[in-house]
Amino acid sequence: MKQSKIFIPTLREVPSEAEIKSHQYLVRAGFIRQVASGIYTFLPLGKRVLQKIENIIREEMDAIDAVEMFMPALQPAELWKETGRWYSYGAELMRMEDRHERPFVLGPTHEEVITSHIRDEIKSYKRLPLTVYQIQTKFRDEKRPRFGLLRGREFIMKDAYSFHTNKESLDETYDLMFQAYSNILKRLSLNYRAVIADSGAIGGKDTHEFMVLSDTGEDTIAYSDESDYAANIEMAEVITKYDKKQENEKPLEKVDTKDHKTIQDVAQFLHVSPSDCIKSILFVVDDEFVLALVRGDHEVNDVKLKNILDASVVEMATPEQTEEIIGCPIGFVGPIGTKNVKIIADHAIKYVVNGVCGANEVGKHFINVNPDRDFHIDQYADLRFIQEGDPSPDGKGTIKFAKGIEVGHVFKLGTRYSEAMNATFLDEKGKSQPMIMGCYGIGVSRLLAAVSEQLADEKGLVWPKSIAPYMVHLIIVNTKDQTQMDLATEIYKQLKERRIEVLFDDRHERAGVKFADADLIGIPYRIIVGKNASQGIVELKERSTGESKDIKKENLILEIDRIVQA
Amino acid sequence: MKQSKIFIPTLREVPSEAEIKSHQYLVRAGFIRQVASGIYTFLPLGKRVLQKIENIIREEMDAIDAVEMFMPALQPAELWKETGRWYSYGAELMRMEDRHERPFVLGPTHEEVITSHIRDEIKSYKRLPLTVYQIQTKFRDEKRPRFGLLRGREFIMKDAYSFHTNKESLDETYDLMFQAYSNILKRLSLNYRAVIADSGAIGGKDTHEFMVLSDTGEDTIAYSDESDYAANIEMAEVITKYDKKQENEKPLEKVDTKDHKTIQDVAQFLHVSPSDCIKSILFVVDDEFVLALVRGDHEVNDVKLKNILDASVVEMATPEQTEEIIGCPIGFVGPIGTKNVKIIADHAIKYVVNGVCGANEVGKHFINVNPDRDFHIDQYADLRFIQEGDPSPDGKGTIKFAKGIEVGHVFKLGTRYSEAMNATFLDEKGKSQPMIMGCYGIGVSRLLAAVSEQLADEKGLVWPKSIAPYMVHLIIVNTKDQTQMDLATEIYKQLKERRIEVLFDDRHERAGVKFADADLIGIPYRIIVGKNASQGIVELKERSTGESKDIKKENLILEIDRIVQA
Repeated sequence: MKQSKIFIPTLREVPSEAEIKSHQYLVRAGFIRQVASGIYTFLPLGKRVLQKIENIIREEMDAIDAVEMFMPALQPAELWKETGRWYSYGAELMRMEDRHERPFVLGPTHEEVITSHIRDEIKSYKRLPLTVYQIQTKFRDEKRPRFGLLRGREFIMKDAYSFHTNKESLDETYDLMFQAYSNILKRLSLNYRAVIADSGAIGGKDTHEFMVLSDTGEDTIAYSDESDYAANIEMAEVITKYDKKQENEKPLEKVDTKDHKTIQDVAQFLHVSPSDCIKSILFVVDDEFVLALVRGDHEVNDVKLKNILDASVVEMATPEQTEEIIGCPIGFVGPIGTKNVKIIADHAIKYVVNGVCGANEVGKHFINVNPDRDFHIDQYADLRFIQEGDPSPDGKGTIKFAKGIEVGHVFKLGTRYSEAMNATFLDEKGKSQPMIMGCYGIGVSRLLAAVSEQLADEKGLVWPKSIAPYMVHLIIVNTKDQTQMDLATEIYKQLKERRIEVLFDDRHERAGVKFADADLIGIPYRIIVGKNASQGIVELKERSTGESKDIKKENLILEIDRIVQA
Repeated sequence: MKQSKIFIPTLREVPSEAEIKSHQYLVRAGFIRQVASGIYTFLPLGKRVLQKIENIIREEMDAIDAVEMFMPALQPAELWKETGRWYSYGAELMRMEDRHERPFVLGPTHEEVITSHIRDEIKSYKRLPLTVYQIQTKFRDEKRPRFGLLRGREFIMKDAYSFHTNKESLDETYDLMFQAYSNILKRLSLNYRAVIADSGAIGGKDTHEFMVLSDTGEDTIAYSDESDYAANIEMAEVITKYDKKQENEKPLEKVDTKDHKTIQDVAQFLHVSPSDCIKSILFVVDDEFVLALVRGDHEVNDVKLKNILDASVVEMATPEQTEEIIGCPIGFVGPIGTKNVKIIADHAIKYVVNGVCGANEVGKHFINVNPDRDFHIDQYADLRFIQEGDPSPDGKGTIKFAKGIEVGHVFKLGTRYSEAMNATFLDEKGKSQPMIMGCYGIGVSRLLAAVSEQLADEKGLVWPKSIAPYMVHLIIVNTKDQTQMDLATEIYKQLKERRIEVLFDDRHERAGVKFADADLIGIPYRIIVGKNASQGIVELKERSTGESKDIKKENLILEIDRIVQA
């Protein structure tokens, strides 16, 4: 394609609304343009990359016998009422009415639609298992759209759904999909981790998120420095073994701690370490009050608290609620003498000897506190957030933290949707059973942004060969020089004949402008036809390394062929 | 793909809501399913055909240097207010509000969005011309969605937009696009006509519709039986030459015609031919009353009336308005003695000798009416609908009528959008000019339906090779027969190795069910592995002709290769 015929509006300035690298470069290099907050047009270069990502996804889906279909964006509200999500999804669900005032949803996902199709058409175990997918535009009314394509309101996803007669069959498809997602991310040259994620009520390790590592990611991942283990920080199990201090228990004593409230202040005032303190936080768990205890150097993980108690909603109690239930302000709360609250303690609390905790009285703390001796604990559990330095839950290596961008999600849904929507099949014995389902999503437009974010350098975008908008950027330094023009045109023709995708910068622009644009756009290989054209020599430059070399025109195509195949 | 692993829910019964062949078969053969009125899911087979149509369109677009991009479905209302279409588009425009109550449109088309991008990025004649396109989901809230994919509310279109500095450049792109659309329809094996369509205010022959011929089409096409000429019936120019009757003018006379009102009744009562009568119809043209005259055997074409008078709105006057202005009921209206109305007559009226017309008095008509002698005509014009038997406007052959399904539209927009949205460029002299635009649409999902409608037979769908979901349908008659199973599996493997797309019906179903399904689905070639498998012989059957022959397995692949290439 000649650059004079395509539409690549590059910008010198950084767009003011773009906070992160990928957003800035995708706008500056002319890949995307905003139409409204969180809503983008993919300009020709952006569309080319999208298309290549989609093709890679298709190949990997087809390889595991997932079948492609295409469901509509408009979904009747009735389907969402069947699963209850019409009521529970909240403001992110885009809703509208048609001319007859019938309510519709602009689909953020398609569990309802696909389940309605399958329940209407599949009645027998003989037609299962089945895995279907689509690549389609989704809508989610983000409260604060940001980071360009990473958190938009209209975006492209590949979503897949599988239907099974038993759990083993679901496990099999889940594993295939897990592997397919891994393949996709590898083919995109992404540094990623598949992390154990929160599956809510379904529990266990039945859901993974695929995270692309990036400092601008919104999620924190806990990963092992020696194994494949990785988890969302709220999901990482703590298996740390603690030692009990070799110290005799001393008598409990109430002391004056003035207005020191935080663990840090109290520990300093009492000349103890924060790890000797007991942090006591009151939570409202569904309709019950629960006092959660962790060591002063640890933090309560509310997702764990929720899972331990098999609760729907966990919220920290307000200062008013704390005052009412405990009888003192936050900062002096402790487990000794509390009534009508369940006390759940992290395992580390068991090993506290002669510790410190709030005395439920303004300006007072207890010292020489010994759990189980001085107060009753209803349940010990893994209640705290993992920390860097903790042992990896798989027993191999030590935990480190990284930031990640979620690009994919595989999920064992079980029978949540099939039961709500009555999607049943007759088993071998003629008995009606709800289908067992899995769902699997990968963000197509988000992958485009994630690759940009992870691979870009200080000059602009850097595309891997697998999804580059073009393989070669052919640049003519001086379009008025006939020798350069002839040679560039000849090379352009040769590349096209070889079906090597080439963008030919034939614009009448200064060389500086062309090079800066080329750096921004980030096509893997650049052929520069300049002064040495008269000797039949051009420059071949690799975008990712910046390495360049002069090469004779006779050897050029062979060399390009070689590096394209590599 | 094994049929046991794909999702093809076929039906024996005709769905009650499906009025036409394509709709019935696409549902029965498991290509589509309705999600809501006018809103469909493309099941795996439907999606495969869509994808192939899209690829053909892409190839033809790329060949004329149109560049692909992808614009969002959600469009801010502000853009539509700039062009005024927010107010004028009516109830078919789907509207919604986001969580912040900002109004949006679900795009039925993208003139506003693309024009906003181009005005923001292109300032100089040096960057023009430019042609962009997208394949994207559109929304239109049809009052009465019907005919399956033909008149839906959510559908897939390829829309293209071109931007130019002058009309010659627009003409050039228009011609390229016209040719590209012709190529697409030919590659889909469609019998179609490119017809001259109504371009409204822009006038002339600057718009064509591509019509697939079909008895179920909603549009009537007038075409020549000897040339390429074709036009929407309301656009076809009438060039008929009339002869004046060789008869002396007689004195005008008012006669009693009782309660005869229609041309037919009056002509019969007076023993004259309808072609001797003058039909007079009162219209409201913008704010003016106009009396339109055509011969009794002709019909007034209101689109022509609108174009003749360069009007915005043309409506037939109500009985009340007619009484008020003319002073008598419809049925007795005539041009003699009318006041304050403009009289426009079709050319044929000039040749009426001693004709008949209403006398503007209940129960009375004039006979021996001679136009220009008995009343004044403000303007003679081409005012009537063309009829079968009229000469073709291009001078070649005679007009015939056919019904058509509109699948594409090319349109010279001119500066309508660029002026409204201030999309200007600086010309060679540094002067600011509005860009000249063209727009071009072709219905992707509608093409799928049109091909179904035109090519299907009494047994089911019949796909052309270019967009068939699979090329070969491999059917095993008895899955319990190991010899048949082995041979079918071997053939399946060989076809896959040759990259010939094959659907392998490996289901444990009766042969009758499999054959009926295969007929419904309409894959071009069928290989049937049955009783003769033990002798290494299979049956090869062509779907469109029904012709079949036995073939030895050694020769099968070569034969398939040959017919696939053909």
